[in-house]
Amino acid sequence: MILRLGHCELFVTDMQRAREFYIDILGFREHDSDKDHIYLRGVDEFDLHTLTLTKSKTGGLGHFALRVSDPEDLDRLEDHHKRLGVPTLMVPEGTEPGQGRALRIVEPNGHPIEFYHAMQQVNVYNPQGGLNHLPMRATHRDRGIPPLRIDHMNIRVANVDQALKYWRDELSFSVSEYVEKDNGTFAAWTRRCQGTHDVALVQSASGAGLHHVAYTVQGPAEIIRTADLLADAGYQDAIEFGPGRHGLSNAFFLYIRDFDGNRTEIYTGDYSRDIDLPPVKWTWEEYDKRGRLWWGPSYPERFLEVSPVNNQWI
Amino acid sequence: MILRLGHCELFVTDMQRAREFYIDILGFREHDSDKDHIYLRGVDEFDLHTLTLTKSKTGGLGHFALRVSDPEDLDRLEDHHKRLGVPTLMVPEGTEPGQGRALRIVEPNGHPIEFYHAMQQVNVYNPQGGLNHLPMRATHRDRGIPPLRIDHMNIRVANVDQALKYWRDELSFSVSEYVEKDNGTFAAWTRRCQGTHDVALVQSASGAGLHHVAYTVQGPAEIIRTADLLADAGYQDAIEFGPGRHGLSNAFFLYIRDFDGNRTEIYTGDYSRDIDLPPVKWTWEEYDKRGRLWWGPSYPERFLEVSPVNNQWI
Amino acid sequence: MILRLGHCELFVTDMQRAREFYIDILGFREHDSDKDHIYLRGVDEFDLHTLTLTKSKTGGLGHFALRVSDPEDLDRLEDHHKRLGVPTLMVPEGTEPGQGRALRIVEPNGHPIEFYHAMQQVNVYNPQGGLNHLPMRATHRDRGIPPLRIDHMNIRVANVDQALKYWRDELSFSVSEYVEKDNGTFAAWTRRCQGTHDVALVQSASGAGLHHVAYTVQGPAEIIRTADLLADAGYQDAIEFGPGRHGLSNAFFLYIRDFDGNRTEIYTGDYSRDIDLPPVKWTWEEYDKRGRLWWGPSYPERFLEVSPVNNQWI
Amino acid sequence: MILRLGHCELFVTDMQRAREFYIDILGFREHDSDKDHIYLRGVDEFDLHTLTLTKSKTGGLGHFALRVSDPEDLDRLEDHHKRLGVPTLMVPEGTEPGQGRALRIVEPNGHPIEFYHAMQQVNVYNPQGGLNHLPMRATHRDRGIPPLRIDHMNIRVANVDQALKYWRDELSFSVSEYVEKDNGTFAAWTRRCQGTHDVALVQSASGAGLHHVAYTVQGPAEIIRTADLLADAGYQDAIEFGPGRHGLSNAFFLYIRDFDGNRTEIYTGDYSRDIDLPPVKWTWEEYDKRGRLWWGPSYPERFLEVSPVNNQWI
Repeated sequence: MILRLGHCELFVTDMQRAREFYIDILGFREHDSDKDHIYLRGVDEFDLHTLTLTKSKTGGLGHFALRVSDPEDLDRLEDHHKRLGVPTLMVPEGTEPGQGRALRIVEPNGHPIEFYHAMQQVNVYNPQGGLNHLPMRATHRDRGIPPLRIDHMNIRVANVDQALKYWRDELSFSVSEYVEKDNGTFAAWTRRCQGTHDVALVQSASGAGLHHVAYTVQGPAEIIRTADLLADAGYQDAIEFGPGRHGLSNAFFLYIRDFDGNRTEIYTGDYSRDIDLPPVKWTWEEYDKRGRLWWGPSYPERFLEVSPVNNQWI
Repeated sequence: MILRLGHCELFVTDMQRAREFYIDILGFREHDSDKDHIYLRGVDEFDLHTLTLTKSKTGGLGHFALRVSDPEDLDRLEDHHKRLGVPTLMVPEGTEPGQGRALRIVEPNGHPIEFYHAMQQVNVYNPQGGLNHLPMRATHRDRGIPPLRIDHMNIRVANVDQALKYWRDELSFSVSEYVEKDNGTFAAWTRRCQGTHDVALVQSASGAGLHHVAYTVQGPAEIIRTADLLADAGYQDAIEFGPGRHGLSNAFFLYIRDFDGNRTEIYTGDYSRDIDLPPVKWTWEEYDKRGRLWWGPSYPERFLEVSPVNNQWI
Repeated sequence: MILRLGHCELFVTDMQRAREFYIDILGFREHDSDKDHIYLRGVDEFDLHTLTLTKSKTGGLGHFALRVSDPEDLDRLEDHHKRLGVPTLMVPEGTEPGQGRALRIVEPNGHPIEFYHAMQQVNVYNPQGGLNHLPMRATHRDRGIPPLRIDHMNIRVANVDQALKYWRDELSFSVSEYVEKDNGTFAAWTRRCQGTHDVALVQSASGAGLHHVAYTVQGPAEIIRTADLLADAGYQDAIEFGPGRHGLSNAFFLYIRDFDGNRTEIYTGDYSRDIDLPPVKWTWEEYDKRGRLWWGPSYPERFLEVSPVNNQWI
Repeated sequence: MILRLGHCELFVTDMQRAREFYIDILGFREHDSDKDHIYLRGVDEFDLHTLTLTKSKTGGLGHFALRVSDPEDLDRLEDHHKRLGVPTLMVPEGTEPGQGRALRIVEPNGHPIEFYHAMQQVNVYNPQGGLNHLPMRATHRDRGIPPLRIDHMNIRVANVDQALKYWRDELSFSVSEYVEKDNGTFAAWTRRCQGTHDVALVQSASGAGLHHVAYTVQGPAEIIRTADLLADAGYQDAIEFGPGRHGLSNAFFLYIRDFDGNRTEIYTGDYSRDIDLPPVKWTWEEYDKRGRLWWGPSYPERFLEVSPVNNQWI
């Protein structure tokens, strides 16, 4: 059974600038790094890393990964994708730090994804010899926002109804909300978790692409703090869209972009709803009027830009 | 499959005072009421009601209810409990407002519980003719804290290891954290949701009893607001314990009690973790030192008091 | 000695809509009302009222008032204005509810203002017989944002250097920050309080006019709450500009407008600085780049609109 | 004219531990340090330093300082104190970093205090070449709480009515609130600023002593954050009293103590009121019931402990 979004890999062109942006300013916690990778997580996360920054020639999506509840789910998913005619690659334990064996595919809509079960859990080192059993109890080391945990991926697909055949029908993702347009589906928020989404699918003529990865924060004050941090550090241009509230999903958001164009949604206000319940439907008119933006500034043109996805995944 | 805690019924002796406490001061949203019942919910909830206040001769727990993902789960659970020798009562649709048929039992540790699938979902009436598809988008009607959603029940059992045979082994609840004492389990936080618990089981010589029901709020500021609201309204005595932070569960909490002794935990800061992962263990010494209270005032004697449970449930 | 901005009167065309906007949605606390007036205050204020809404044929500024530390200051100010050739009108105690005698003038730049000393202080009625000696200790009656206290007026003048001859040189207001343009002053933030301003003077070819009155709120979360409240109530159009942060003054702001075009800045993050210290200077280039807006959406065209001022004040 | 509390000097026994406590954990911003001093300020402050930590053999109060609006006030205060028979010492510019000449006295109730006018104002260095004219616009360097600005001193005096003869009658401090007991004054909150106090005077049989210095923070969430920071760093014992709300002053507070027993109140929720207005009176019964503590845990015995004051000031 697929449980949730697990982690995401972004491509960056400059490791030093990436470190300043994600660690020094935003406050991601570093697990480890080497010449070509920085492994990060949010401060509430038990998983060793949920955001990998990998040196590359341009920005873009390396891959994202979904966690399954049972190691044998990986074999079942391998068979299942073979039946679907989707090429698969099983990589051994340790291919990514702290991770067990993992199944890599390019999903039918063109995105590099991975399924895994085992991921090393964080032990908080506490120099005072205390009992910080839980990773979030190290606030004395926090800085920046800080981000709490990975929430969702927002990707572009050529045809959402087609994409739902894979995500909803093959992977059993549940649609929480969707937008109907011209008798088809313009966008669908899909999930295995109890929140509004793990993976949002949005129609785009140009097909596969990454719009953003989202990290949750405590509340509205931390969204504002994100903009303050970036502006105070001289990165006003990294603030792309928001703060504002989405009508669809109820999220209070700020979209920011690093120097390679990778977009992160800083995100709060999501709700919880059982995955067996019917989705909330928005007509195009409703979505255009209040679903995209319950209130807030209009989005700028560049918000429509999409990052490329890894074409050498398997 | 059991999904989560759904709702809770508390007994109160005075409907007018109950209305003042839960609606006027705390800010629960009212669905409906009659002479002997008030049906409430938190402002983020889609379910029509999650807290029922029922007129009775003393305070106490009427019952609490667990939602299942499939209507047929009710029949499976009926058979399952019959095999366990637990008496069952299937009540028809509409026995509680907006609810489908439901299976009632007294679980082996003495608590009145209910399983249900169908519950009417909220449609927000919007006098401006807007698009408030989501219940939380009616903040202009909020007052009080307000509570967001029901989170968990904390109940007392004569023997936690015995209780786990039912909750963990029969109902497939996952233990998120537990306290070991004298080679046994003193307390266990169990769940079907992705948070730390739906039902906490704590050892007590006197057996079955309700310690508290918990509702989540947005963050620490709303915990402080709860104490301010009660004190400003002249209900300082209703503030029993806190604000403080639990080490176990990471919750930032305030415990309050109504005039009938019913205790509610106003709760934030819980974390999310997959239910297949191994629990966090606290030794008694660790729990006593920092697990019960990471920081905060010591609990008062009356915090050990427990409310009675309904002995006429089926 | 002038102490601070005391209160403000706005003109509204519809008392019922005014009540809904300012009381039901925003959460101003009502002192009293009659057919043509509603007297309001913020929840942290001791003064009986700080915002008067008066029935009129259009929106606009009725007047604003400055509090002096000594009743005899009124006589001194009367003499002083006579010497300046400014017509004066001394009105008796009770002309405005709870207010002592007051000196009314139209200041040399065209704005209707008033000086007063005595204003009735709030006694909080507490039905539980408690000790709420301070007005803010009645949170159980709060709704809306709520606004805390009046902060400043932002008015338009034909020539800021000319206006400073009155406000700085005659009334001894201190400039906290200013914008230099073309060897003159484009705008100046002036004050008698320890915050950044009581009265902001901004250049406008059309001369006297009200840009906005500002009320402070607790912090960023309450700014966001203001936008949520308005949008949820169907008043998205009342949100004009923001949320964003000003570089000059450091304020985190949201500008909103009622149905008559009266603009209120919902305001937090102001700093405190002694009034004898030299002002912070912004060149026009600095102001245009980061002073007006440290970060946030660009202002819309209509943000340049100004409300008329009462031309029948004395 | 005296404007406000300016800064405070505390004695500490271990510079390294002081650095960890005040800078690494709490997040004070460092101006400078030498072998025997660390000069700190809050993140919203323009003054170069407001808290000096000085190496000494025990904890305690070095001195505190009041800012005057005019350099010549120092000469007037020197004359005034000579007439009162209070020994004075005028120290030259630069005796403390960035400070002009200053007048030092031991006030008649035994506390080492200082009057000064000139204090160097902060220029924020901004490596991105930005326009951070205001010190608070450097959030990307914040950590810890962080504290915003110094607020008040709370000192002990043998006889409050006697002490008011100096503070109210000689220095023209205004009483904002006071507690009457046995036909005398038990405690008085006095000020030159518009907040509730610069200096609180509380009766104690043992005479002169420092109870605490207070720093303001943004709101309730930062009070909770303070406790989290200390507990997470293993300093649970540094949390002495609170969080809770005072009835008198309306402050929401947490009292913390460093390893030398120096107590700081982390403080928010203070209100603003003109200094000419009559004080709020609390009878002893009212104060004991709700003035000291509107709600919150009872204070521990050690909260009554007082730190010694510098007996070698002049």
